[in-house]
Amino acid sequence: MAADSFPEIVAAGMREIDNAAQAFGIDIVEVGPGRACVRMTVRDDMLNSHTTCNGGLIFTLADTAFAYSCNSDNKTTVAAHCAISFVSPGRRGEILTARSEERFRQGRNSIYDVTVTGEDDRTVAVFQGTARQVKGESVPGLNALGGEAHERHG
Amino acid sequence: MAADSFPEIVAAGMREIDNAAQAFGIDIVEVGPGRACVRMTVRDDMLNSHTTCNGGLIFTLADTAFAYSCNSDNKTTVAAHCAISFVSPGRRGEILTARSEERFRQGRNSIYDVTVTGEDDRTVAVFQGTARQVKGESVPGLNALGGEAHERHG
Amino acid sequence: MAADSFPEIVAAGMREIDNAAQAFGIDIVEVGPGRACVRMTVRDDMLNSHTTCNGGLIFTLADTAFAYSCNSDNKTTVAAHCAISFVSPGRRGEILTARSEERFRQGRNSIYDVTVTGEDDRTVAVFQGTARQVKGESVPGLNALGGEAHERHG
Amino acid sequence: MAADSFPEIVAAGMREIDNAAQAFGIDIVEVGPGRACVRMTVRDDMLNSHTTCNGGLIFTLADTAFAYSCNSDNKTTVAAHCAISFVSPGRRGEILTARSEERFRQGRNSIYDVTVTGEDDRTVAVFQGTARQVKGESVPGLNALGGEAHERHG
Repeated sequence: MAADSFPEIVAAGMREIDNAAQAFGIDIVEVGPGRACVRMTVRDDMLNSHTTCNGGLIFTLADTAFAYSCNSDNKTTVAAHCAISFVSPGRRGEILTARSEERFRQGRNSIYDVTVTGEDDRTVAVFQGTARQVKGESVPGLNALGGEAHERHG
Repeated sequence: MAADSFPEIVAAGMREIDNAAQAFGIDIVEVGPGRACVRMTVRDDMLNSHTTCNGGLIFTLADTAFAYSCNSDNKTTVAAHCAISFVSPGRRGEILTARSEERFRQGRNSIYDVTVTGEDDRTVAVFQGTARQVKGESVPGLNALGGEAHERHG
Repeated sequence: MAADSFPEIVAAGMREIDNAAQAFGIDIVEVGPGRACVRMTVRDDMLNSHTTCNGGLIFTLADTAFAYSCNSDNKTTVAAHCAISFVSPGRRGEILTARSEERFRQGRNSIYDVTVTGEDDRTVAVFQGTARQVKGESVPGLNALGGEAHERHG
Repeated sequence: MAADSFPEIVAAGMREIDNAAQAFGIDIVEVGPGRACVRMTVRDDMLNSHTTCNGGLIFTLADTAFAYSCNSDNKTTVAAHCAISFVSPGRRGEILTARSEERFRQGRNSIYDVTVTGEDDRTVAVFQGTARQVKGESVPGLNALGGEAHERHG
C-alpha cells in the first residue's frame, strides 16, 4: 500500500505497532475516512478442533478492520461493545477479507458495520462494533508531523 | 489437569486438536457439565497499538471457554452469535481467566455467559454466546471409547 | 399505501392482524423485497419517567420494520436475536421512522439492519436483527390468492 | 407492594411517572439493590400477526426490569445497548415475568442480565443491557425527602 492519504498513514502507523495484527499476518487492503479493508490467510495454527478457522481469529480480523476504520482521523478510539454472527466457516488456507464502514457517528460515539467474506465472496461473519473516542493520538506523534506528511503525500 | 470426568476428557480432547488454543497458550483450568474455565498469559505478540491485549485475543479466550462449556457433553455445538463488552484493558504479561456458564438450554439451542477477569479479579470483558448443536461428536470417536474411558477414569 | 407489489400486499396483510402495531399507531411508509420503512408518533402513553419515548417502544418500531422486511416474500420468518443501541432520545410528539434493510441472507437465516431516525433526521437508534425462516405463510392463505392478487394489483 | 426499602421507593416513584409501564400494565413484583422483578399479562392488543406476544412488548418488559434495577440507587441511569434472544413465544393471556440482576458495575458503567419467563417457568427471552449513569435523580426530588422517607418507611 502506498501511503497517500491521512487515513492510510494512520492505519499503516497503527499496524507497525500492532503486534497481534503482525503475528496473524493481517494486511491492510484499503483505508479511507471511516472505512478500512484488511485481509488474512487462514493458517494451520489458526484452526480449531473442527479444522476450520477459529472464531476468535475471524473476530480479530473483523475487529482490526473496525479499529483502523474508527481511528482513521488519528483520534484514539476504542471498542466498547462488539457483536458477531458466524454464518459460514473460514477454510484452511483461505484468504478472508474484512471490510468496515461507519454506520453512525455522534460526538465521541460511533458504530461500525464489518462484513467478513471468503475467497468466493460468501459471507463468513457479520460484525457490528460500538466505539468510543478517548484522549490521545492513535499513532502517537503523527499529528505533529502533519505538515511534513502533507508535503510528502499531498 | 487429571482427566477425571467426561467433560474434562472432552475439553482435553478438543484442546489437543485446537491449534489456535495451543498457539495462544490457552490452558484449561476447570471444566464441568455446561461450564469451563480457561486462562492465557498476555504475551508481547498479543499486544495492540495501545500496548494492551488485542481485543481479538480477549474474545478468543472467552470464546474458547464458551466452546469447551457448550461441548462438554461431546455433542458438536458451534457458536452462532457472540457479543462482548470490553470494560478494562488486559495488561502485558498478565494472566487472564475466562469462566463460562450455561445460562439457558432448550433443545439444540443454548446461551452461555462468560466473564474474563484479570489477576486482580477486575472484570476485563463480559461475553455472551449463543450456540447451536449440530451433528457429530466434539471429539470424534470419543463416544465409542465411552466404556473404556469410564473404566479408566471412573 | 396503495398495495401494488407483493411485499406491500404481505406487509399490509401482516399489519391487519398485528394488534400491537395497530395499538401503537405504527404505519407502513414503504416496503419492498427485503426492506421496509415504518413510522410512529411518540404519544404521551409512550413516555418513560424521563418524559422521552420508552426504549421498548423504539425497539418495537424497529422490530416492526424488521418483521415486515424479513417476511416480504410471505415466508414466515421470526426474530431470533436483536440488538439495539440507543443514541438519542425520541421526543414527545415526534414522528419516528424506522428503515430496515437486508444485510445478509443464506438459506433460512438472514440479518437485517434497521435505523430509527427522528424528524430532524438525527439517528435515534441503531438496530440489528437475526431472523430465521420457519414453516408457513406470513399472511395465511395469501399465496393461494396469488393469481388473483396479480390480476388486481399488477 | 409496600414501599419499605429505598430501591422499592425509587421503583415505585419511577413507575408513577412511567406512562408506558402503566399503559402495558407492567407491575413491580420485587426490587432491591441492583435487581428488579416485574410482570405483565399478554393482552390481546399485545399480539402480533402470529397471535403470540409482540417481541417489542417482551423487550419492553425486560427493559423495564432493567431500568428499575439499574436506577435502584436513584442515580439516573440510561440504557446504551441492549440485546435480546427470543427463545419461546409469549402466549395470549399469559403472565410474563422479567427478572433483572446486575452482572457488572464499574464507575458509571454497568451491565445487567434479564431473563423473561412464562407461567410454566420456561424461558421466553434472554436479555442483556449495558447502562450508563448520567446526571440527575431517577425520581426527581426523592433524595431531598430522604430523611422523611426513612421515618415513614423505616
